[in-house]
This record gives sequence, structure tokens and C-alpha cells, in this order.
Amino acid sequence: MRQVAILGIGQTKIDEHWELSLREIGGVAAFAAMQDAGVDNVDALFVGNMLSPLISGQNQLGAFFSDWIGLWQKESVKVEAACASGGAALRAGLMAVAAGDVESALVVGIEKMTDKSGHDITAALATAADADYEVEQGVSFVGLNALIMRRYMHEYGWKHADFAPFSINAHANAMHNPFARLHQKINTDQFEKSAMVATPINLLDASPIGDGAAAVVLVPAERVASMPGRPRVTIAGSASATDSIAVHSRKDPLFLSAAYESAKRAYEMANVTPEDIDVFELHDAFSIMSALSLEACGFAERGQGVRLGLDEEISPQGRVPVCTRGGLKARGHPVGATGMYQVVEVVQQLRGECGATQVEGAQVGMAQNIGGSGATILTHILKAE
Amino acid sequence: MRQVAILGIGQTKIDEHWELSLREIGGVAAFAAMQDAGVDNVDALFVGNMLSPLISGQNQLGAFFSDWIGLWQKESVKVEAACASGGAALRAGLMAVAAGDVESALVVGIEKMTDKSGHDITAALATAADADYEVEQGVSFVGLNALIMRRYMHEYGWKHADFAPFSINAHANAMHNPFARLHQKINTDQFEKSAMVATPINLLDASPIGDGAAAVVLVPAERVASMPGRPRVTIAGSASATDSIAVHSRKDPLFLSAAYESAKRAYEMANVTPEDIDVFELHDAFSIMSALSLEACGFAERGQGVRLGLDEEISPQGRVPVCTRGGLKARGHPVGATGMYQVVEVVQQLRGECGATQVEGAQVGMAQNIGGSGATILTHILKAE
Repeated sequence: MRQVAILGIGQTKIDEHWELSLREIGGVAAFAAMQDAGVDNVDALFVGNMLSPLISGQNQLGAFFSDWIGLWQKESVKVEAACASGGAALRAGLMAVAAGDVESALVVGIEKMTDKSGHDITAALATAADADYEVEQGVSFVGLNALIMRRYMHEYGWKHADFAPFSINAHANAMHNPFARLHQKINTDQFEKSAMVATPINLLDASPIGDGAAAVVLVPAERVASMPGRPRVTIAGSASATDSIAVHSRKDPLFLSAAYESAKRAYEMANVTPEDIDVFELHDAFSIMSALSLEACGFAERGQGVRLGLDEEISPQGRVPVCTRGGLKARGHPVGATGMYQVVEVVQQLRGECGATQVEGAQVGMAQNIGGSGATILTHILKAE
Repeated sequence: MRQVAILGIGQTKIDEHWELSLREIGGVAAFAAMQDAGVDNVDALFVGNMLSPLISGQNQLGAFFSDWIGLWQKESVKVEAACASGGAALRAGLMAVAAGDVESALVVGIEKMTDKSGHDITAALATAADADYEVEQGVSFVGLNALIMRRYMHEYGWKHADFAPFSINAHANAMHNPFARLHQKINTDQFEKSAMVATPINLLDASPIGDGAAAVVLVPAERVASMPGRPRVTIAGSASATDSIAVHSRKDPLFLSAAYESAKRAYEMANVTPEDIDVFELHDAFSIMSALSLEACGFAERGQGVRLGLDEEISPQGRVPVCTRGGLKARGHPVGATGMYQVVEVVQQLRGECGATQVEGAQVGMAQNIGGSGATILTHILKAE
């Protein structure tokens, strides 16, 4: 496999974009990435999306987008892995460039969610769970995460307030990210008094949906070596792993084995350890997922992920900075696009473009994208050179 | 890119499988392919599927299937490109093995369509077209193909009966394929008198939907060189191209430019010309698509694809054998699985396993999978060595 670099990045603000259609949102991010890369064409397009058949009545987003953005006759395909669709699309694009099949690829994660009612969205998101054995029983996606969180609290003795630092950190960081969905600081008191969604998950444990798209341009790394002005960012590690789709089928529902496995392979490929990771964009769809992700990736012992927040280690100045641009919690979670937002944000950190939430001297960054309640997990490690 | 071989194949009969769930159908094909390959594990799984979110309320088919068939912790992802989802999944698996990222991959195309009413299926299939500019106007997917067929007949002076040989050949060949949906011979008279669906497309111009799955196991070609008993089948050419998703946006709606482009690239990669192709599994979702595919791929002049049927060149004994196992028309068209059925059938031809419809001495075979009314087109060329 030849090495692959990220030449350009682009994103839209995550919002209720009633003024932009599905194709238009994707176009904004795609053109921004191509402009940032200084290219006006690519050999192939990979689209990450979860919900467009259900929300917009539109399948075949590959051809749909290559048509819209003028990539005539180019290869184009959609990749779907629930909320990990963005990371999965990046990996598909990576493989095409790494194999030598194409010399450049555009990867776009896109989701338009706010054209439907909350009830429709809840039903659409439940397609990430097991239709036959979970959804059929009436459980929603947040319900599954609530079961996991409650069990975690019971097993390890944490109380709800102990999760507050994850959300507080995310909201504080999002204040400095113009693309973030939410721009409001929160404190522990607000966190505790927030409206209940599915006990013990309340509104401030949960990430907001939204419309958004994020994109990168991939090229062989040797083509970027001589570019002046900013560091070359390469994809040093990439891995995908799966666990059972139904939570009840897992040997241990409190351990994200697919996160462990994909992180392990990505560390090996990038030749790094958790200690080398300067910034970690993790998948905080719910606060419990932050804790489980940190544990599975080797940043905390089992049951102790929460402590990293309590010990103030997760801020941009901490030992394990997470969600430095707001995370899913405050930047927002347009599901199929989220994995690409994470990657774009890691690139911003490695380029030193993050202002008040810049992690000083960040050289190695990790993005972890989770589909379902831990069923498909993609881990990517980027390096600035 | 290293060369990739198809080590094993598997498929289910295409039918109304009310006794099998989505996961079970996929499992049957996957296990058959692994058994045929003589392996009990693979490094990664690629699933091609179009409609499961809409028909079965199930997304994330990658994790869903790897869970079901026991590929614990393995990489797994779904690829979607409407009716070209199967071919697109094959190409994703090919890239992963060709890049050297994995040493084996299972690719499964799967579709379960008969759990819903015809009305629901028609609406679901329309998501392959442009939701904003085609479906919004009330046109169905068969309606779009009818517009193309009518224009073709007007432009080149063919009458409806001239398309009969495509359907007659497909039905005749399906008689010898136990996995085919339809086992009934038809004649020109029946073809002409069949019930109208969307003028000029009648029931015998159109392929039947169905439930089905087809699968292959991919490995690096060097691992297969020494296997005794049957020829090594390699993927010598693979390409994907797109056209505008809306038919009205095309410069010439009677020319499948994405078929032309993907075939051209696949020919170059495989170092062959149309004359070298011994068997061609084309995408006869509607009889008009057979003509357009033959023309775009260099087997006939513009407007003359129909003549190949009239001149009896398309049978297994003819100069350009197509749909040798029944094609979409009679083997059946479980949309996201179809591209994988085509590939499995080409492998059967190259192995000499096709009995009465065997193309004698077949060494080079081509499969072409079309998404939408020509928007995403994948062409694969296989060689027996």
C-alpha cells in the first residue's frame, strides 16, 4: 500500500439548513475541500451517508453527487455503516488511492436530517440497531445507549454528574468552532437539571442531530511532500472492526471490542501507542460513549474513562484532549457526516488552525467513528510531517 | 495493485423467500461461497445492498452480516449504488485485497424485496432516480426506462417485437439454471401479447424482482496459482463510472456513457477488446438496456444493438453470448444482489459449469452492472488461467 495524504478539507456549519437541499449541502463541503486542496477535479468520489433513502427518498448518492459537482464520468459510490458511514467512506477512498487505482479521491460525509419530524428521525436512527431483535421490541437508539450507561454506573459506581465534564468540555470547545451546531457554555448544574430523554441519559448527555457535510481530498503522499506553507498530513493508520449489532449479543456490553480491535490495528499500522496521540476526536454521541471509547483505546482502565474528565485531562490543555472542536455533543451529529467532521478537525489540529482550542504542538491525531451502539468502529490516525 | 482471484462462489435461488429473513438469505450465499473456496474465515466483508433500510428497516448491513455469519471483529461495510450495489461491493472488496490491506475478502450482494407490497417496492426502487427532479414529477423507474425505449424506437426505427430475442434468450437460458427465478420458455407471440407496464415496456420486457443473495471469496491471485482441479479465475479488469442521475440531464439519453467509460477502462486494464469477450452478463433490467449496453461496450454500432438479437448472435452458441444463466429478465433481479449474481455466473462459465448453456471454451467473461437508468455503471472482466 502506498501512503496517502489529506491535501484539502472542507465543511459546512452544522445546522437546520432548510435553505439547502441534500445535494447543495454536500456540494458546499466538496467544493471547499477541493479549493483548499487547490484542485478542480479528482479521479473518484466516495460518499458517506446513512439516512438519505429514509429522509430524502434518494439512493445512489455517489452518482447523485458526482453529477451535482461536475465530476463527469468519474467513479463514485456510497458507503453506509450507520453513524460510522463517514469514517467508512474515508477508508474506501483510502483503499482506492493506496491500491494505486486512482491518483486522487474526494470523500464527502453528508447528512440532511431536519426535513423530517423528530418521530421520523428516531425511527430512521433505529435502523442502526438490530431490526429483528432490538427495534422489534420497541427499543430506540437512545434507549439502547441508556441501558449501557445505567449498567456502567451500576457496575463501576459512578453517578450521573460524573459524566458532566465530557459535555462541558465539548460545549466549551464548540464556542470557538464557527461550524459547530451549538454555541453555548454549560456547567454541571445545567447538566444535572437538563430534561430527561431515556434514564439516565438526559438532553446534555446526548448529541444534537443536524444537517451538514464534511469532505477531504486524498492523494498519494509523495505528491504532497514538496508543498510549502503547511505540514503534510498523512493517514498513518486506518482500521475497521465490527461487534455484534445487537447489544444483548455482546459478551460484555460495557467493552467496545470493535473500538479496541480497530484502535489496536491502527496503532500498529501507524507505529504509535496511545501515549503518542496528541488529540483524539472521539464519538461522543452520548456521554457514556466517551468513557467507553477512552477505555477501549487504552487511555483509561476499564470503568475509569470517566475519571479522565473529572481529573481535567480531556481539555485542549490536558493529557488526552478530546472533542476539541465540540465533538458530536456540541459541534453536532449529522450522522453519516460525523466521521468526516472528526477527520477534518484532526487535520485542523495538525495544521495548527484551531485558535483557542489548539492543542499545542499536535503532531499525531486520532479520529474514532462509531456505528450503532458499537457495532461498526473505524479508527484513523493522522500524522503531521 | 496486486492481482486478485475469485476463489469461491455461492448463491441462493431467487424467489419469494418468505421462509428466510434478510440475514438468513445472505448467510446461505456467504457460507456457500466460503465452502466453495474451502475457507472458514476471511479478513473482511463487503455487502452490496440497496433497499434494506426501506424494506426491512435495517441499516449497517456490514456489521449485521458479519455478526450473523460469525466473522467476529472483522472489518465490514455496506456499499450502495442502487441496482449497481453488487458490482460496487465487488470493487470495494477488490480494492482492499489489491491494496494489500487484507488477505481475503467476502463480498455478498443481497436483497430481500418481497416482504412489501408492489406499491412500496415501486416507491423504493424510485429512490434510484433523482428525487428532486424526476420522482417529484411522478415518474416511476420503469417509466424512465419506457421514455428511453420509446425514444430509441423512434430514433432508429425499431418496432417492439424486435426486442423479443433478448427476453426469449434469457428465458431459454434460465431453464437450465436452478437458481433462476423463472423457469418458463417464451416465444415472440407471448412477448408481444404480454401485459403492458409502461408503454412500450410490457411484462416480458421487464425483469422480475425477488429475494436473493450471491457471494464470492477474493484472495490475492498468487495464493491460487497452485490449486488443482479448476482454472484460476482472476479479476483482470474493473472500472466504475457515472453519468447524470436524471435522464433529462444527459447529452444523449440513448447512449450509456458510463457503460462506455467503465467498459473502456476495464478493457484497457484487462488488455482485451470486445472481440476477446467470450461471455457477457449484461444488465437487462429492461430489454432496452440490453441494446444500449451492447452498443456502449462496442459490440454493436449505435442504434444496432437490437440486431444482435435478431441475428441470433446472443445465444450461448452465438458470437456475443449474453444472459447465459437467464439474465435479470429470467434469473431475476434482486436489485442490490444482481451485480454479484452476474459475477458468480461469469465464474461458472469460466469454470465450464454451465451445462446446456455453457459457452464452449470460455476464457474471458464480462459482467456489467447498471445503477439507476444508467447513472452508475460497473464493468468487471474475469479471466480463466
